[in-house]
Amino acid sequence: VTSAERNEDVELALRLVDAAAQFILPYFRCLETVENKLSAGFDPVTVADKGGEQAIRTMLQTERPDDGILGEELGYRPGTSGSTWVLDPIDGTRAFISGLPTWGTLVGLYDGHRARVGVMNQPFVGERFVGSPEGAFCLRSSKKTPLRVRNVETLEQATLCATDPAMFRPGPEANAFRAVAEQCRLTRFGTDCYAYCLLAMGQVDLVIEANVQAYDVQALIPIVEAAGGIFTTWAGDDPHAGGQVIAAANPRLHELALRHLNGAIQPAPKLPAAMRRP
Amino acid sequence: VTSAERNEDVELALRLVDAAAQFILPYFRCLETVENKLSAGFDPVTVADKGGEQAIRTMLQTERPDDGILGEELGYRPGTSGSTWVLDPIDGTRAFISGLPTWGTLVGLYDGHRARVGVMNQPFVGERFVGSPEGAFCLRSSKKTPLRVRNVETLEQATLCATDPAMFRPGPEANAFRAVAEQCRLTRFGTDCYAYCLLAMGQVDLVIEANVQAYDVQALIPIVEAAGGIFTTWAGDDPHAGGQVIAAANPRLHELALRHLNGAIQPAPKLPAAMRRP
Repeated sequence: VTSAERNEDVELALRLVDAAAQFILPYFRCLETVENKLSAGFDPVTVADKGGEQAIRTMLQTERPDDGILGEELGYRPGTSGSTWVLDPIDGTRAFISGLPTWGTLVGLYDGHRARVGVMNQPFVGERFVGSPEGAFCLRSSKKTPLRVRNVETLEQATLCATDPAMFRPGPEANAFRAVAEQCRLTRFGTDCYAYCLLAMGQVDLVIEANVQAYDVQALIPIVEAAGGIFTTWAGDDPHAGGQVIAAANPRLHELALRHLNGAIQPAPKLPAAMRRP
Repeated sequence: VTSAERNEDVELALRLVDAAAQFILPYFRCLETVENKLSAGFDPVTVADKGGEQAIRTMLQTERPDDGILGEELGYRPGTSGSTWVLDPIDGTRAFISGLPTWGTLVGLYDGHRARVGVMNQPFVGERFVGSPEGAFCLRSSKKTPLRVRNVETLEQATLCATDPAMFRPGPEANAFRAVAEQCRLTRFGTDCYAYCLLAMGQVDLVIEANVQAYDVQALIPIVEAAGGIFTTWAGDDPHAGGQVIAAANPRLHELALRHLNGAIQPAPKLPAAMRRP
């Protein structure tokens, strides 16, 4: 894949998130549209979520009919090209239904080995985060700001983020997270996809989460990596399938956090076999 | 106080938060300006915080030289008029230093008995929430939207917010919060002043916090009350001095939550005596 092709992928990813935003934004702060996906437990999904994903799929059908699609709402459709678009129209549905502007639309492009291009769009705030091998940057109004992690190398100086303390299973998993949090200078909850983008921006140092899906992370991996950060599972392995994941601003912090996490490793989920290339 | 005077107070409060924003915004996502107020523990304060409050105080010196001022950064200065401006230039400093757009500038006007006018400004997102006896509304771009609480009357249907699970003292206080949270449909952390504004907007139903200060709540009380909500301490008393506070969308939810909280009541802090009128 050439640099020009990569830039085309970035341009397309930006058009995809914009198409989703056009559908999603009118529903933000209009809770009456919310329905529950599961009757047991609380898994909020909105008309906006499904419509946003459909808007992206419709555009891909024209622009990249041979690519596969893995989406939060409408599942997996294998392609023939070897590439798969990985979509979460509203990452942070709980923030969305609470009216908080910390959700985002995620679009990643998986090449059979890794996510090469990723975009996070927060259309209410009006900012987009982009990562690819050509670099990572934030777009707001007409300003383009390069993203770069910062150089905090001890847990005592680090800011840690996670979406919800309840995302960790009680027992070793929750205890391992707490062990890191107790060492850190500051822990913020309620951060969703924003946390990874703010890590890329050098605002926070660690994001540690569990029970996340491929579509929660694939758009964010290229943003973190192109900004100089590290993105793995708690075991230090490939994070593209989700599960227990960690993003760190640098290798030293990553290593320090993994020491606390390595007693609580769970088997990682698997991507659909058809997504991976030999 | 007449309606016209009240509207003048609202107009002035809006100019005050704008003056603060002009100073504060250039520091957002520029962490190198952060300093620690307390060497023990973590209480981040920024140059922006102090400068923002100074900008408000300078304007008040010209516009309302006889009014008192109680500010987070620069303390209490009694006035002679019987009214006190209650200021928090950056509510949510932890969000601010993490780059999250969920902090806000708070300005309330206390009349010796209660806060009559309150404004919350989030200048990065570009929205302002206003409350007074004339009503509550949100301003964004040139659009003015009236605020109204929603009508969720059971904890099982309610969304609960709090800034941080660690704000509750371990023991009865933390247990009481958890008892409410376990009943609720959804609990969101990391919400700061936004939670109260979203309650006024009908997006969330309960905000339960502890260890908050007068300047954390006084701007928000008129917003919640003018939107139809209820704002008290956990004991059901006057919340203007802070401490343990609860905002609820309606009397039924308020009562249901208080049942869980009433075993964990702590003595409320006191406002400076000179702020109160006989």
